[in-house]
Amino acid sequence: MNKKYQVVGIGNAMVDILSHTDEAFLADNAIEKGIMQLIDTSRATELYARMGPAEEVSGGSAANTIAGFAMLGGRTAYVGKVRDDQLGMIFAHDLRALGADYDTPMAPPDAAAETGRCMVLVTPDGERTLNTYLGVSEELRPSDIDENLMASAEWIYLEGYRFDGPDSHEAFAKAIDACKAAGGRVALTLSDPFCVERHHQAFRDMIHDHVDLLFCNVHEMEAMYPAPDLETAMKTAAAEVDIVVCTASEKGAYVLNGGGMEHASAIPTDIVDATGAGDLFASGFLYGLTHGYDMLTCARMGCVAAAEVISHIGARPERDLKELFHEHGLI
Amino acid sequence: MNKKYQVVGIGNAMVDILSHTDEAFLADNAIEKGIMQLIDTSRATELYARMGPAEEVSGGSAANTIAGFAMLGGRTAYVGKVRDDQLGMIFAHDLRALGADYDTPMAPPDAAAETGRCMVLVTPDGERTLNTYLGVSEELRPSDIDENLMASAEWIYLEGYRFDGPDSHEAFAKAIDACKAAGGRVALTLSDPFCVERHHQAFRDMIHDHVDLLFCNVHEMEAMYPAPDLETAMKTAAAEVDIVVCTASEKGAYVLNGGGMEHASAIPTDIVDATGAGDLFASGFLYGLTHGYDMLTCARMGCVAAAEVISHIGARPERDLKELFHEHGLI
Repeated sequence: MNKKYQVVGIGNAMVDILSHTDEAFLADNAIEKGIMQLIDTSRATELYARMGPAEEVSGGSAANTIAGFAMLGGRTAYVGKVRDDQLGMIFAHDLRALGADYDTPMAPPDAAAETGRCMVLVTPDGERTLNTYLGVSEELRPSDIDENLMASAEWIYLEGYRFDGPDSHEAFAKAIDACKAAGGRVALTLSDPFCVERHHQAFRDMIHDHVDLLFCNVHEMEAMYPAPDLETAMKTAAAEVDIVVCTASEKGAYVLNGGGMEHASAIPTDIVDATGAGDLFASGFLYGLTHGYDMLTCARMGCVAAAEVISHIGARPERDLKELFHEHGLI
Repeated sequence: MNKKYQVVGIGNAMVDILSHTDEAFLADNAIEKGIMQLIDTSRATELYARMGPAEEVSGGSAANTIAGFAMLGGRTAYVGKVRDDQLGMIFAHDLRALGADYDTPMAPPDAAAETGRCMVLVTPDGERTLNTYLGVSEELRPSDIDENLMASAEWIYLEGYRFDGPDSHEAFAKAIDACKAAGGRVALTLSDPFCVERHHQAFRDMIHDHVDLLFCNVHEMEAMYPAPDLETAMKTAAAEVDIVVCTASEKGAYVLNGGGMEHASAIPTDIVDATGAGDLFASGFLYGLTHGYDMLTCARMGCVAAAEVISHIGARPERDLKELFHEHGLI
């Protein structure tokens, strides 16, 4: 296959609002640590007023993956909705500046919902707690899905978070149909265990009917395929999906693709901010996959990219990932 | 004196757009390294489209100083103009979250000029090159100056950059008159050697007539008071100003206040991003000054605060400055 794009990602377009905080702030504001919580406008306003000074960095789970993939030199595009406002311009710039194509029509400046944002509260242990105001990102509708774009992708990469919001399943269905009809394949990331709970049946159906590559972490795997151990869960998934990849934080990542389970070790790193670990793992894995590497090397590439992004604040890589792949003898 | 505020800062309200770049990018885009260049909307748009992915952090020279001063627990307020837009809200939040008061009326959302922004290009040597789109920040007019606020300040801290733009000198004059009439004092930072060249006579007049404390670095000192050596220049300044403080990068800072010249050594630091060094020096110095410390300790506090801010990306402190003052035995 030599299509225009190796990977086209679809997800919730977000700008991250990153702030250091302590455990007390989470408790005082009834925020459950370590997970992603969807919040409405009034809660977003209230929380922002209470939180400390922040920095703003483009984010969005699939967008982070595409950013990393673009940085590696992959041919890639992103689909996600922002409003034509300052944060929307920032989001668009940061993707395009890395060489990713991004042409989803922006909602007009007077649209009621603004560009989505995610308040990322980073505790001293490096754990991140996400408070997401979806804003206009949840209004990505089937009409925003360009079938030609989907047909020109070797892989489309679907973000589980995008299962929230009106018409999102229809938008995914349209993307999948156009991609598959043109011989492309479908990757899905489960995003978050609570997201799996919210959309369990929809995930099951999509996985069974369409997914060729499944990304998740151990918590999402548990929520999706309850089983006595990880290997059993992965085998259950592998009965339906060609390639199953499960990340396990400091234990690295596991891959199941036909043969026995393979394992890549995590790269030892001081965790400054865990945001984007899974997203960048997917960047690295997809880079390997679309450039002809074996499964174990793909997983190692994922681990190297993930280690880079957790070593600093923000969910987009700061160091040249390709250089890091060289340093680790992967390319 | 026990006024409501120890320091009230007046300056150009800015959000910084920080990006790593290389020397070639500066050359290719005809950007002179290490200085601040004012750019118009079209140049800002063009440059932003060419530059790499960025992160957004509240900035503005005097605002950085006030942020640092607030973080130290000082009683402080800021005056500067933003538009009622997303970047304006971010700017306001980041100051207030540190405990600084900030109540300058925002320009309405439909104002032609947006919230000001500064594209900060950081080269591998840690040097920063500033490309400033002033936007609505230059529209801070005399009507925006609250005389009661100025009268309630022990010190007002004026940003040299704010000499650009219509009515800015009149706005400063109103602030100075209200402050001085209530027994307050006036500090001025020269901001930038080119800024000194643009406004040489206005600076001279203000210094001669009103300034009690002058902040500058050696380049600004040279531009303001040409002399065979730094000491001669400082003595020339000291003939007009009660306290003269000159920072000298890795050589630390010099203070002249009546007696002989005093010197504080710089704190050895790996320079990641020099943005905000002078601003945070002023935070530390003003903290010492308003809390009864001697001149040398004030200068040392300045050096410690400056060292913190150049050790990471962004012009606002990340570590607790008061803790750092403790570690250095200053408080």
